[in-house]
Amino acid sequence: MNADILLKQIEFIKEIDKIKYIERKTKLFNSDRRENDAEHSWHLAMMALVLAEHANEDIDILKVIKMVLIHDIVEIDSGDIFFYDADNGHNNTEAELKAAKRIFGILPAEQAEELINIWLEFEDAETAEARFAKSLDRFEPLLQNYSNKGGTWQEFDVSHDMVYGMKRIIKDGSSSIWQYAEKFINDSVDQGYLKRD
Amino acid sequence: MNADILLKQIEFIKEIDKIKYIERKTKLFNSDRRENDAEHSWHLAMMALVLAEHANEDIDILKVIKMVLIHDIVEIDSGDIFFYDADNGHNNTEAELKAAKRIFGILPAEQAEELINIWLEFEDAETAEARFAKSLDRFEPLLQNYSNKGGTWQEFDVSHDMVYGMKRIIKDGSSSIWQYAEKFINDSVDQGYLKRD
Repeated sequence: MNADILLKQIEFIKEIDKIKYIERKTKLFNSDRRENDAEHSWHLAMMALVLAEHANEDIDILKVIKMVLIHDIVEIDSGDIFFYDADNGHNNTEAELKAAKRIFGILPAEQAEELINIWLEFEDAETAEARFAKSLDRFEPLLQNYSNKGGTWQEFDVSHDMVYGMKRIIKDGSSSIWQYAEKFINDSVDQGYLKRD
Repeated sequence: MNADILLKQIEFIKEIDKIKYIERKTKLFNSDRRENDAEHSWHLAMMALVLAEHANEDIDILKVIKMVLIHDIVEIDSGDIFFYDADNGHNNTEAELKAAKRIFGILPAEQAEELINIWLEFEDAETAEARFAKSLDRFEPLLQNYSNKGGTWQEFDVSHDMVYGMKRIIKDGSSSIWQYAEKFINDSVDQGYLKRD
C-alpha cells in the first residue's frame, strides 16, 4: 500500500518536471531571457515568504505557498496564455480544469483532491490566501517589466490603462504592495517605459 | 518605516532572480538540458509537499519548504559545487556563510536572521526538518539520473560506491524513500547506467 502511494507520487514528481519547459512572455530581471513556469513559481513562493506581513488579512502562509507552487502546473497541458490576450483572457478554465484533473490525478486520490481544491481556490480568488497569492502573481511581472524598462509592455504594445486595469487587483491582497505597484506604474509612464492611453 | 521594509524586501526579491542563471550539473528528466537552481528549488518544494508523509519523524512542513526554497541562494555568490567534487566537497562553508550574510542581509534585520538560521539549520542537518530536506535534495538528482539512463554519473565517471555513499543519508530523513532510492541505484547498476566498483 505504502509502496503504491510512493510510486504514484514519484510518477507525479516526474510529470511536473515539464513546467520547466513552459516559457512565459515575461523576461527575467534586467534580462532578455524569458522566464519559465518553474522559475516563476519558485520566485512567487519566495515572495510569499518574504512579503507575508503585508497581506491585508490574516493568512495561512503555508496555503499561499502551496497555491503559488502549483498554480501553473495545469499549463503542462493547456499552455501559457498571455495576460493581455483579449481572445483567451485568463478564462480558459475548461481546458485548465481538465489538465488539473489529469495531472494532480496522478497522485493518490486524497492528495489529488487536496491539490485540485487548492488550485481551484486560487483561481476563484475568493479567500484571503487566494487574494494574496494573486497579488504576488501580478506583482512579479510588474517588477520585471519595470526593471527591464518596459519589457513585454513595449514588446506587445500594452498601454497604461491595460496594465492598471490588470494590476489593480493587487490591492485586494495587499494595500501596501499596491501602493508600490502604483508608483512603479506611474514612474514607468514618466520614464517612457509604458505608453499613455 | 513600512515603506523602508518593503523596499528592502523588493531589493532582495530582485537579487535572488540571479539563481535562475546558476546551472547545476544534473539534467532535467529525460533531457539533455541542465537544471538551474530556481527550477531545482521549486521541484524540491513540490517534493516536500507531496512526500511529507514519508518523513521518519514529525516535521514542520512549512519549515522544510522554507529550507528547500532558500538552500541554494548562497550559490549566487559561491557557485554550484558538483556533488562528487572531492577537492571542494560540499564543505565550502566559509564562502557560503559569507554569501548568506550578504544576500539574506539585504532583508530587514529580523527576517535576515530568520532565513540565515534556517539555512544554517539545513546545512547542519541535525533537526528532523533538515534531515528530511536533505533527503529530498539527494533524491531528486537520483531520480533524474535514473530517468536519463545514467546522466551525470556517466558524464563524470561516477561509480556505484560513490553514489551509494552520498545517497545513503536519504535514510536519515525517510526510510521509505530510501528503500526506493536503493532499488533505483541497484537497478541502475543492472541496467548498465552506473558502473560497478
